[in-house]
Amino acid sequence: MHKPSYIIGIDLGATVVKIALFKRGLKRLILKETFFTKGYPSQELLFDKLVNSINRLISSCLIKKSDILGVGIGVPGPVNSQRGLVYYFPNIPGWKNFPLKEKLEQKLGLKVFVENDVKLMALAELKFGQARGVKNCVCLTLGTGVGGALILNGSLFRGSSFVAGEIGHLSIDWNGPNCNCGSRGCLEAFIGNKQILRNARKLFGRDISLEEISRLAKQGNKKAGKIWQDMGFKLGIALSGLVNVFNPEKIVIGGGLANAGSILFKSVRSTVKQRAMRPHSKVVSITKSSLGYNAPLVGASVLVAVSLFKDLN
Amino acid sequence: MHKPSYIIGIDLGATVVKIALFKRGLKRLILKETFFTKGYPSQELLFDKLVNSINRLISSCLIKKSDILGVGIGVPGPVNSQRGLVYYFPNIPGWKNFPLKEKLEQKLGLKVFVENDVKLMALAELKFGQARGVKNCVCLTLGTGVGGALILNGSLFRGSSFVAGEIGHLSIDWNGPNCNCGSRGCLEAFIGNKQILRNARKLFGRDISLEEISRLAKQGNKKAGKIWQDMGFKLGIALSGLVNVFNPEKIVIGGGLANAGSILFKSVRSTVKQRAMRPHSKVVSITKSSLGYNAPLVGASVLVAVSLFKDLN
Repeated sequence: MHKPSYIIGIDLGATVVKIALFKRGLKRLILKETFFTKGYPSQELLFDKLVNSINRLISSCLIKKSDILGVGIGVPGPVNSQRGLVYYFPNIPGWKNFPLKEKLEQKLGLKVFVENDVKLMALAELKFGQARGVKNCVCLTLGTGVGGALILNGSLFRGSSFVAGEIGHLSIDWNGPNCNCGSRGCLEAFIGNKQILRNARKLFGRDISLEEISRLAKQGNKKAGKIWQDMGFKLGIALSGLVNVFNPEKIVIGGGLANAGSILFKSVRSTVKQRAMRPHSKVVSITKSSLGYNAPLVGASVLVAVSLFKDLN
Repeated sequence: MHKPSYIIGIDLGATVVKIALFKRGLKRLILKETFFTKGYPSQELLFDKLVNSINRLISSCLIKKSDILGVGIGVPGPVNSQRGLVYYFPNIPGWKNFPLKEKLEQKLGLKVFVENDVKLMALAELKFGQARGVKNCVCLTLGTGVGGALILNGSLFRGSSFVAGEIGHLSIDWNGPNCNCGSRGCLEAFIGNKQILRNARKLFGRDISLEEISRLAKQGNKKAGKIWQDMGFKLGIALSGLVNVFNPEKIVIGGGLANAGSILFKSVRSTVKQRAMRPHSKVVSITKSSLGYNAPLVGASVLVAVSLFKDLN
């Protein structure tokens, strides 16, 4: 009997959209197509471009739609993953309450599954990365914002309205700086890209890029090192609280700033060791994501398999 | 065929030990025996007293051991619930790494299940109380310390080394007051009994009990009201973070201080509404535990049923 065995994974990012073809159960992508999100400045234009790109990818691979199990799509914002409904995208205008699953299924004639991109990174880590075989794991991405997702009892945890995991909006100082979310002292208000760059500008007395800070820190520059140390400390405080509450055995850190290097990770680890409770800290290890840049894309393909077959394989 | 249908529930508290007989599946206890923990000042004396009391309870009820499904025991500290091993009790000396399940099973010839008392309060809420039919719920107890437990996907969540749920040790101010756990600015360091009494002493200029503060607050005394308001605010900050991370639909608050009344609950609710993210705060409700004083005892009997039959019924 003929068995469909291809999966399309999509990472709809605020900067770049990536579309890739996967063979079921494999991490390596067969073919990838990308385009800049900003090139399609309305919701309608971006949606049409997405549909056209998917169709072109399929035809360029010379496979039939009946060979495809489904399409997984990761999006940069909160979604109702059961209904495939986008609540909104903080950094792409015009997608409020958009029924992405329904609309894409109509256009493509394929099954579509929608999930938040950080949750997909966690699924990718669970199937192929640092969270393989792990029961309880906190995943986070460090970038413009601080994203998070939880693996609990071996499965992606979604919460009561599918929006669990907002680790960036755990307050570590109730009286701290204002956060975009409306609260104060959130982890993201301390260690989001913008705040790091602002701190660096003060310390260096000039504009400086994240790449330069990383390079300088690796060369032993004290000021640059202090930036990653401080960031690791604040992150460590938030993670200590999560370690006390969740008692995970693993924390996986991804996203651009995870490349800051060993100074950052040392600082995170020593803060958690110092601040979390002993029965909790002694069972947890903190590692860098091994999937990197393509993690949400890989996770989108895992989502299709998990949704259709109810387990990871 | 003869089916055993009684369960013994025990709440081993730092102040009082309660032992009760339950009929399987029922909340109301048939018979209860209590004694003061401090009357048995060594680990051996307390353990022997416990065994004798259980045996006396059984014989005074005129039931046979073969009528008893098992014994559930809640303890005031971290345990490995799988092995029934007590790690330690913060407020009862001499129980470090004590194999309570094994020792009790030897003495009693009955199946024994051991769990932390706050986790049992959560189990009781899940089976008989405010968390009935709820998917994701944060339970906490306000007293000398701040205890916590999580119901996730309809089950008690234990974590990777069985010590999940330490909500009292979520830091809401990384630079805040020292906590007993070794960290700083933990929720417990702000709203534990001691801290509340210290704040009250400052405000009133004299020693004052929690009961008096409650009474005065209910009579409209501004200073007393402010104490519960402040406490509700700090608690609301911590809960906002948990709401963003777990996305629960319910928060159940128990323990002595939960009786402070509506000022406390109003303050908690308004803080969560203000500080948590909108898609999260709009699905969560915050209520007082309905089981009160006997919750861990009831939970101990639920533990036996859940452990033996793998579901709540």
